[in-house]
Amino acid sequence: MDKDSIMNALISRRRFSKLSATVGAGMVSAHTDPITPTAQMKYYYTGGNVKTKAYAAFDESGELRPWEFERRPVGDNDILIEIKYASICHSDIHQEKGDWGKVTYPQVPGHEIVGIVIAVGKNVTKFKIGDRAGVGCMVDSCLECDSCKNGLEQHCDNDQTLFTYGNPDNREPTSITQGGYSSHIVVRDHFAVHIPENIKLQEAAPLLCAGITTYSPLMKYKINKGDKVGVVGIGGLGHLAVKIAIAKGAKVYAFTTTAEKEQDIRNLGVEEVIVVDDLSKLQPYKGKFDYMIATVPEQFDAAQYAATVKPFGYFTVVGMGKNFMLDISNIVMSQSRVNFNASLIGGIAETQELLDFCSQTGVRPQIQMISANQINQAWKDVVAKKARFRYVIDAATI
Amino acid sequence: MDKDSIMNALISRRRFSKLSATVGAGMVSAHTDPITPTAQMKYYYTGGNVKTKAYAAFDESGELRPWEFERRPVGDNDILIEIKYASICHSDIHQEKGDWGKVTYPQVPGHEIVGIVIAVGKNVTKFKIGDRAGVGCMVDSCLECDSCKNGLEQHCDNDQTLFTYGNPDNREPTSITQGGYSSHIVVRDHFAVHIPENIKLQEAAPLLCAGITTYSPLMKYKINKGDKVGVVGIGGLGHLAVKIAIAKGAKVYAFTTTAEKEQDIRNLGVEEVIVVDDLSKLQPYKGKFDYMIATVPEQFDAAQYAATVKPFGYFTVVGMGKNFMLDISNIVMSQSRVNFNASLIGGIAETQELLDFCSQTGVRPQIQMISANQINQAWKDVVAKKARFRYVIDAATI
Ligand SMILES: [Zn+2]
Ligand SMILES: [Zn+2]
Ligand SMILES: [Zn+2]
Ligand SMILES: [Zn+2]
Repeated sequence: MDKDSIMNALISRRRFSKLSATVGAGMVSAHTDPITPTAQMKYYYTGGNVKTKAYAAFDESGELRPWEFERRPVGDNDILIEIKYASICHSDIHQEKGDWGKVTYPQVPGHEIVGIVIAVGKNVTKFKIGDRAGVGCMVDSCLECDSCKNGLEQHCDNDQTLFTYGNPDNREPTSITQGGYSSHIVVRDHFAVHIPENIKLQEAAPLLCAGITTYSPLMKYKINKGDKVGVVGIGGLGHLAVKIAIAKGAKVYAFTTTAEKEQDIRNLGVEEVIVVDDLSKLQPYKGKFDYMIATVPEQFDAAQYAATVKPFGYFTVVGMGKNFMLDISNIVMSQSRVNFNASLIGGIAETQELLDFCSQTGVRPQIQMISANQINQAWKDVVAKKARFRYVIDAATI
Repeated sequence: MDKDSIMNALISRRRFSKLSATVGAGMVSAHTDPITPTAQMKYYYTGGNVKTKAYAAFDESGELRPWEFERRPVGDNDILIEIKYASICHSDIHQEKGDWGKVTYPQVPGHEIVGIVIAVGKNVTKFKIGDRAGVGCMVDSCLECDSCKNGLEQHCDNDQTLFTYGNPDNREPTSITQGGYSSHIVVRDHFAVHIPENIKLQEAAPLLCAGITTYSPLMKYKINKGDKVGVVGIGGLGHLAVKIAIAKGAKVYAFTTTAEKEQDIRNLGVEEVIVVDDLSKLQPYKGKFDYMIATVPEQFDAAQYAATVKPFGYFTVVGMGKNFMLDISNIVMSQSRVNFNASLIGGIAETQELLDFCSQTGVRPQIQMISANQINQAWKDVVAKKARFRYVIDAATI
């Protein structure tokens, strides 16, 4: 970061301070977690690497420990976010346990990140200091290819999509991207989104992976009022899929293998909860749904679930199990004639669109707040399917 | 079979004899395998079970032996076909070796069957004695449900689709359906198709599974002139997929793992043959094709092949490996955004349509004739990918 951008950051900071009285007042009235500008900024950014406190994985045990590391300096197109909340996605667990391949440790998970902008690079116009900002599953891409230009940064034609943690990044002192279970993050401005005023910061976090990952295919396959939509796997992603589909006017049928979740799922407003303790429970729904989305983060009988969709309809998988592999029955697929596809998060503009959609429709995740020292237990609970439905870490406790 | 139908059969037989001079002459000029009506009929059907010579599997060894058994009497809606040729499908091998589940032995494989009608039940109007007829993968269904009424007998809503061999059928003396590596078959008239005059009987056989199985999805996904179509696995099914797609005006790209097939595949008229000795060979074709069909009868890297299709395009699997299971990479599917589906043969009307299409376009399978005592070697050669491209058994040698 050169002097100009440091100056810019400082100037912006000062401008923000001057505005804080009014902005702060507005914030108080608009949301229930008012940010006090003075309290929110732990330090002025004056250039150089960004010292960061975090919880990191050091091996495949699935146990995280406190860690301090440095992030790259805030570049001309970067913003520095003081993280307020980060939520726990099942992907974090898969990744850090090595279920998806070799892991470079120490590694900080977390790709559902919200906080306050505390510094901006000199070219940044998208954010100003004091803004509420969110970061999801990716933090960079080429931004020049057709996919990037068309808001599909996750499908960068030049294979430059950079995911939020564990991706090689030679700009970073640790040589890889590091995620959101941490105090600060430096991110190219384009890859952060604005959090609408009426969404609590802690409730915004799960929208940044779980929300967009389910919203994107539900929009792509044009769920309409009255459509019958099946949702398989009602966890962090699934419960948001249910809420978004209902907000779009669909009649939602929720499939779970966890009988203990039945009442909690019913409370989401679904037509039916089907506890699939045996695949025969799917039989009455054969060829019934207009669309189905599966969020199961493990191997499951995908073809049998897909067969609940009408012939030539679509079945989308967004959960990713071990090694990203899914064993599906060809013969069942050939009988159902359903189209199977998988969807990868969503683009940045689409993520902003989702946040605005939630702002307008009242869709919010159902969350449970935890402090950093509860992360390890929370991971165990996520694996044991005990989350209702998303654990959110208070970053102040990291 | 009651007396009326026997009489009907005999009367039809006589009527055919009277017509034989003209019909026979027409046949001589129209195709190169003229059927002499007197030679083709080994016996008059006079009711009762139909004594049948066959090659059958007796265990999971994959070795067939001669066997004599009886088929059910010719019912009012049935026809009796004296089989002239039956060709070898990889499915026969999977099925008899128990790759798809428990097998009832002895079992006669074969679902690419052609021959001459030698008796008809009293209600039969679709065929008369002396007609050239073909039987494919199924021999019965309810014919009353929506799917059956719409020409999708393979998807009978009442689950009454009866496959040509190995399916329980209490009308049969052996309690299961028995396939076409045999001298005769009794089949409900609806499930036999007419073989156009200009298609040799032995060349018609492979069309009845390999042909319709590839034709059906190529039509379903509307392959147009100039479309780029990928075909994966160039065996019995694949080489017909290539020919049919070319006949529809597509530019075809053939993918094989067998370098020895390269020239033979090139001769089919494809744009390119890609020998995939390593998945990196797929890289240049990423997102290139309008459609892809895979005929691989084994586990393969389906998602990686599917990624050669344009985003939101379709990739159809028609081959069926062990246990009908296919392990696909979710993450690759999520990056390609391609729709994966599987297709199950085709309906009876569509099979007739395929035969007429081949009649008009000149599409014919590339076959190798064998006698019955070569079946066991041929099966080994099919597994070893040595077939070019379909073995056809001369049923006279059974
Ligand atoms: Zn996630
Ligand atoms: Zn790009
Ligand atoms: Zn076959
Ligand atoms: Zn039916």
